[in-house]
Amino acid sequence: MARPLILITNDDGINAPGIRALINVMKEIGEIVVVAPDSPQSGMGHAITINSTLHSSLVSQKDSKIIEYSCSGTPADCVKLAINELMPRKPDLCVSGINHGSNSSINVIYSGTMSAAIEAGIEGIPAIGFSLLDYSWNADFSQSTEFIKKITTNALKNGIPKGVVLNVNIPSVISTEIKGVKICRQAKAYWIEEFDKRTNPLGQEYYWLTGKFVNEDLSTDTDEWALNNNYISIVPVEFDLTAYHFIDSLKKWNFK
Amino acid sequence: MARPLILITNDDGINAPGIRALINVMKEIGEIVVVAPDSPQSGMGHAITINSTLHSSLVSQKDSKIIEYSCSGTPADCVKLAINELMPRKPDLCVSGINHGSNSSINVIYSGTMSAAIEAGIEGIPAIGFSLLDYSWNADFSQSTEFIKKITTNALKNGIPKGVVLNVNIPSVISTEIKGVKICRQAKAYWIEEFDKRTNPLGQEYYWLTGKFVNEDLSTDTDEWALNNNYISIVPVEFDLTAYHFIDSLKKWNFK
Repeated sequence: MARPLILITNDDGINAPGIRALINVMKEIGEIVVVAPDSPQSGMGHAITINSTLHSSLVSQKDSKIIEYSCSGTPADCVKLAINELMPRKPDLCVSGINHGSNSSINVIYSGTMSAAIEAGIEGIPAIGFSLLDYSWNADFSQSTEFIKKITTNALKNGIPKGVVLNVNIPSVISTEIKGVKICRQAKAYWIEEFDKRTNPLGQEYYWLTGKFVNEDLSTDTDEWALNNNYISIVPVEFDLTAYHFIDSLKKWNFK
Repeated sequence: MARPLILITNDDGINAPGIRALINVMKEIGEIVVVAPDSPQSGMGHAITINSTLHSSLVSQKDSKIIEYSCSGTPADCVKLAINELMPRKPDLCVSGINHGSNSSINVIYSGTMSAAIEAGIEGIPAIGFSLLDYSWNADFSQSTEFIKKITTNALKNGIPKGVVLNVNIPSVISTEIKGVKICRQAKAYWIEEFDKRTNPLGQEYYWLTGKFVNEDLSTDTDEWALNNNYISIVPVEFDLTAYHFIDSLKKWNFK
């Protein structure tokens, strides 16, 4: 089989150590093209740029065989631009990350990393988002690379069905402490916001958004449980958001 | 029963005619507080502001009994700030819109209007997003207000279960041509991007993101079908994105 063509993106920006680690894994697996934001885009969710222009620059490093573009847009923009303008053909796989920080449970909704993977999924391309539970710029990504390789080769071999993308989160421990991989559902967790209210030098009030993560979903089949117990979590994620279980009840409402 | 406390937001900005129309409907139903972006935020998806500050201003109109705040953030930020800082108590309902333009099918993923409703849902508040299929600033929202009132009073009476929010789209026709309300699933549609490539005065290339909407999902139970046949569509939407149907297959992958 020819080597697969792999699109790599992220939300921490093209210079983040997380995407550098992912590039190093993927170049062993296939031909790669990198299209990533030129600045950090954490928390961008599935934002796209429709009221402004987009630009991209070829930024491949000297003597590198890897084609790299930085893009002024969001992670979802990067994927759209990569697939429709910059790549020679539709990629066989899109990987996003490695994110600096968790995208487990409800964080999937706010995540730029996962929105890039979901955008690829919408466009019919198998896609995986990878996140390491360490927010620091100098996190140790080397502990997770063997697992990332196994998950990616499995995805290429077994296929990911249309309408599904994978959300992979990795505990921040040394590789010998990782107990394995668990297939999970998204824990029903949420954030309690704590707005830090301050006053600027002009006397005007402003806020910093901070928050506390609350997980009251204690089942052992969730991503939170897996991560807390040193397993890598994989949640298959879909972008058909229909709450099918509520359709019949809703049909009984009276709109006359 | 005491009049319900209703939070109103949108993504087109606090001065958009769509939110003005929604305010006029909701003030007949309950006590309202408006917290909406100070500038248009279309296509923001579920973005939140974590690397920058937020500010809000009380902008109630003179002699108005309605409390209105503009907020520098995204629609999801507005909801977080409203619930956790600005409102006297947790609202009984959050309504978002009326959006200038469709948020049917896959557009739910890119929609700032729906991200606001989903954020409220995550925080345990019943929520509905309303969108009119007319992108123009001067769209005629008056044709839809009776339907919006009926849907909202139904939601208050019957309740919306935890984990579900409603995505309501309204065809852009006069009210006598609206055939009724259909409960639907999200059509499996997508956008084909068409990047409009241009050159700026400095000779640098840039892009405008444009696209063509493609719907190959022709079943009669979808929101696209309903809207094309002059029905108002309601899709119950959930934010547990787990693709439960793929969990068993995924468990058979070999990660050893």
